[in-house]
Amino acid sequence: MSPPEKKAKTGGYKLYYWGGIPGRGEYIRLAFEYAGESYSEMNAANKLIPTITNPAKVGFPPHFAPPVLELPSGRFISQTPAILNYLAPRYKLAGEKGSRVLEKDLSDEEREEAEEERAIVNQLTLTALDLCNEAHDVHHPIASSKYYEDQKEAALARAEDFRKLRIPKFLKHFQSVLASNPATEAGTKTYLVGKQTTTADLTLFHVVDGLLFAFPKRLGALQKSGDYEDVFALYERVKSEKGIKEYIASGRRQAFSMGLFRHYEELDAE
Amino acid sequence: MSPPEKKAKTGGYKLYYWGGIPGRGEYIRLAFEYAGESYSEMNAANKLIPTITNPAKVGFPPHFAPPVLELPSGRFISQTPAILNYLAPRYKLAGEKGSRVLEKDLSDEEREEAEEERAIVNQLTLTALDLCNEAHDVHHPIASSKYYEDQKEAALARAEDFRKLRIPKFLKHFQSVLASNPATEAGTKTYLVGKQTTTADLTLFHVVDGLLFAFPKRLGALQKSGDYEDVFALYERVKSEKGIKEYIASGRRQAFSMGLFRHYEELDAE
Repeated sequence: MSPPEKKAKTGGYKLYYWGGIPGRGEYIRLAFEYAGESYSEMNAANKLIPTITNPAKVGFPPHFAPPVLELPSGRFISQTPAILNYLAPRYKLAGEKGSRVLEKDLSDEEREEAEEERAIVNQLTLTALDLCNEAHDVHHPIASSKYYEDQKEAALARAEDFRKLRIPKFLKHFQSVLASNPATEAGTKTYLVGKQTTTADLTLFHVVDGLLFAFPKRLGALQKSGDYEDVFALYERVKSEKGIKEYIASGRRQAFSMGLFRHYEELDAE
Repeated sequence: MSPPEKKAKTGGYKLYYWGGIPGRGEYIRLAFEYAGESYSEMNAANKLIPTITNPAKVGFPPHFAPPVLELPSGRFISQTPAILNYLAPRYKLAGEKGSRVLEKDLSDEEREEAEEERAIVNQLTLTALDLCNEAHDVHHPIASSKYYEDQKEAALARAEDFRKLRIPKFLKHFQSVLASNPATEAGTKTYLVGKQTTTADLTLFHVVDGLLFAFPKRLGALQKSGDYEDVFALYERVKSEKGIKEYIASGRRQAFSMGLFRHYEELDAE
């Protein structure tokens, strides 16, 4: 946990991630954009990996992969869900109770409730990120180190299973969470936890956005079925949320292309 | 967050997971066993999924997949890393500073240090779990819903990449973390964070154990190389740690078989 001396007073958040793609860095960006928090991006492509894996540059511990976030304290953390879980209570993105974990003077019962709600937000964020990971593995089922074209046959087989079984299974889960949220009223079930935006909402929004890009035919058919109405309503709600709306309008948000979510005509179908 | 009335006073931890395999439930069991905390297992195979996905049974929210943990409060949480992150500070498994998050009266600086160290432990736990996920995908590269035998060709290709590139990449990372830990002295670098056991140590221990079962030839060669000495030393250290040693000796620990970590002769090589 001891960063090198020169990093001790950097101030502000710095996101170390690849430039040019939304990627996993986007989940972190969305939290900052929603919160109106300023952050800078460090994306020098050829220096990214040598930097984040080197304890002499990032302090202890070195990191496995980007995104890596440099904190105002000068310390660094990585792993998308760990970063989101760290940031969430700072921006009231860990639920009404869950965001209280940073407060002093909570009773034992209040602290327990706060810890539990923060864990629930973490859980739902992790499940949305699992769907993102599976969407990536569809076009790279054999190895990240190989071209898509060299694993296309396996990708076609995996895409069929992903479209038919996996996407509906995940959407059904999130629909069930939204529909059973006791804090929201019937007809406006667009919050995964309580009645305020959490990192789980932001993450699910981006995953649905990525799936709409990568599998437009399949997502179109699923949307038309009407079985996942609240999931698509959440997507529309987050899109026009304060902070997110301005971010999208700014043109700063990277377009999907050849990152985690990829559109290959042959991998999509209704 | 409101569980059904009848669940409100159950007391004790109950782990909902498949019986007969270590699986992802094992990471939770190891935390309890290390801590000497009692817990019960709910593994009624045909009722597991209908239970955890049903808000009428588990309260809000319903869950995507096991493991699911019922808390003494009667509430439920799922997602292995979310459960571990929740339990960690309770059993001093979130690092010396990180485990202080549940304390009252921390100064702002102490709370920030606690949050950061807990995040680092979470980060390293997540990376070890990523390696576990990849080990699973080696024998199921196309679909979890299909038999290994029906995706064997793709599995052979993925296994080659996993053995040659992925296992060494992860082990190199953990070796680098262990070797650069400023809290431990040269020669005894067996703690990932600070100088006490964390969920990251327990998780990495089980992943290495799983890899030794699934890929004995490859792990043997990597151990012999001497490049990952501290990783294997951590494995041996955790194995004889108080709590874990007794758990292994008790015979209660499930043997590896046809779960996440599987041994197929044809997928292993030096």
